[in-house]
Amino acid sequence: MKTMQIHNYAVILAGGKGERFWPLSTAARPKQFISLFGGRPLLTLALERLEGVVPLERTLIITSEDLIPATAEAARGLPAGNIVGEPCGRDTAAACALACGLVAARDPDGVVAILTADHLMADIETFRQTLRDSFTAAADGRNIVTIGIPPAFPATGFGYIEAGEALDTRTVTRFSRARRFVEKPDLSTATRYVESGQYCWNGGMFIWHVKTMRAALERFVPELLALVDATSDGGTGEELGARLSPVYAGLPKISVDYAVMERADNIVMAWGSFGWDDVGTWPAVAGHFAPDADGNVTIGACETLDAGGNVVVSEERLTALIGVRDLVVVHSGNATLICPRDRAQEVKQLVQRLARRPDGGKYL
Amino acid sequence: MKTMQIHNYAVILAGGKGERFWPLSTAARPKQFISLFGGRPLLTLALERLEGVVPLERTLIITSEDLIPATAEAARGLPAGNIVGEPCGRDTAAACALACGLVAARDPDGVVAILTADHLMADIETFRQTLRDSFTAAADGRNIVTIGIPPAFPATGFGYIEAGEALDTRTVTRFSRARRFVEKPDLSTATRYVESGQYCWNGGMFIWHVKTMRAALERFVPELLALVDATSDGGTGEELGARLSPVYAGLPKISVDYAVMERADNIVMAWGSFGWDDVGTWPAVAGHFAPDADGNVTIGACETLDAGGNVVVSEERLTALIGVRDLVVVHSGNATLICPRDRAQEVKQLVQRLARRPDGGKYL
Repeated sequence: MKTMQIHNYAVILAGGKGERFWPLSTAARPKQFISLFGGRPLLTLALERLEGVVPLERTLIITSEDLIPATAEAARGLPAGNIVGEPCGRDTAAACALACGLVAARDPDGVVAILTADHLMADIETFRQTLRDSFTAAADGRNIVTIGIPPAFPATGFGYIEAGEALDTRTVTRFSRARRFVEKPDLSTATRYVESGQYCWNGGMFIWHVKTMRAALERFVPELLALVDATSDGGTGEELGARLSPVYAGLPKISVDYAVMERADNIVMAWGSFGWDDVGTWPAVAGHFAPDADGNVTIGACETLDAGGNVVVSEERLTALIGVRDLVVVHSGNATLICPRDRAQEVKQLVQRLARRPDGGKYL
Repeated sequence: MKTMQIHNYAVILAGGKGERFWPLSTAARPKQFISLFGGRPLLTLALERLEGVVPLERTLIITSEDLIPATAEAARGLPAGNIVGEPCGRDTAAACALACGLVAARDPDGVVAILTADHLMADIETFRQTLRDSFTAAADGRNIVTIGIPPAFPATGFGYIEAGEALDTRTVTRFSRARRFVEKPDLSTATRYVESGQYCWNGGMFIWHVKTMRAALERFVPELLALVDATSDGGTGEELGARLSPVYAGLPKISVDYAVMERADNIVMAWGSFGWDDVGTWPAVAGHFAPDADGNVTIGACETLDAGGNVVVSEERLTALIGVRDLVVVHSGNATLICPRDRAQEVKQLVQRLARRPDGGKYL
């Protein structure tokens, strides 16, 4: 019953450019609004996961200013004042400073879980337990808690956290000191990490007391304190927006991992074994659906003739495939993407090309 | 000025199932209605080609009953009574019998050019000259004139006509006796044909006097005379339709090539060197457009990243290709086809599969 006394808050970071999931996601509809899983946007699922851990009144979403209406739509039930728009993107360190200021203004004893809007977790109950235990571990303000994900494979696309000394927390969740944060490794290094059993993926989730947040920001990125202070009187809506605009332009663009986590010496890692998936590419999306006998994953209407291993997202039209293998085919209202599964990460480059077209805006 | 005295008529056969060009063409919109070339339907182009050779009042179109409205739309300027719908498809011999009856009722001295609705001709002036000369050659009723196409390559998808003795017609167009019609040959036979210089493709265009038509039908497919007679009083519209219905059901389904041309001994072949193309598949369509530097032919908006040799028909949407080669990609309002260029002919099979889907009708 210890968590009852903790002033737990959740702040979901929900920005994004919508490049990797183009054409289904776009600048106006980034990944967190995609409704492929259970027919609900990833952001809605991220909120649902908090049920029983953090009440909606103490859950905030930080998004970009222009995404506030779409965010409100996906976050029904959340008080309107809990959706805060950044005037421009300044990476996660600035978003954490904003979160710190917003929560501190409401509750100087707040403990804040910084969470992501566009990931999936297979085992929600374990996620909730991990989060509860992390609030407990962070409550006294001594440590920053980060949730590490035991790696399922030697990913080269994630940062890793090296576990140090195990802590005796008497919680369901295992905790260790975090020895260090490392940036995306090459494959042989990643393989070594996985085999050692001492490394976890950095899932980008941090639980810390507002005073711990402020202290870390003050020590490592003092330029961000202006942002913490700009929000200290608890204003919301347009009033807050007007106050953020002049501050944001001058903020450094830096991730919280790089600015704080790689440098702090008071980090504790929760072992988060709840089937985390960042669903980073179209083939990763396909991994959440059962393939047909030929290995095709189709979301929507599809007819095939000697075609296998394809991923088809075809919600409003029929896709007919003859004799093609291992393609990704995704339709949106006015655009279609076709690429081999193993080149799905190049969608970003394609989106950049589109941005240079005179008519590109129609499709982005 | 000899053609001035000839009672020349044109009958364009414009039926079709719309399978090979699915999803752009469908049962309700077969190939002759596709507007990829110059923005006008192939049927419209077929009519325009007759300008200066056959007046519109003497031009008829035979289509299927349900395609009459679409045909009228594509054939603006043609008198409504000149569009005749067959109650069901009975192949080209029946259509020729119908053409014979329709023209004979108007003009017992009519000379009829049976033409196709969905082919392209690069050199229209030469086509017109060939047609004029063919009317001249057919006017006395002794011979059936067929237009042979000097083969551009050893096609195995067409029938061939073997040329016999050259005729001294004093026309711009060369004429020879047709020694025989042969069905689609294998590749080595086709190669021999092409190398001999004595074979032409059978383009399916025939010019004959109505009395010659009637005589040929009487001799080779007398079952079709009922159809000639059913139209002998020149009725049109619903009256004609009501008369055709009971007759059609009992007609043999046979092509005019098989029923008449392979058997008749009075066939003369015009050498038709006007860049004929039956545009039989999507890659053939692509042959009429200039490719980009990577060999991609795109009709509509397309963005590529390391993709080459593709054919993209994307009139109302943008297609983005990454790292794919030699694909055909075609979008219609609610369906998309993706297949390798060299398997485009399998679209027919795919359409048959679609026809068996409970929701298939939506896309066909």
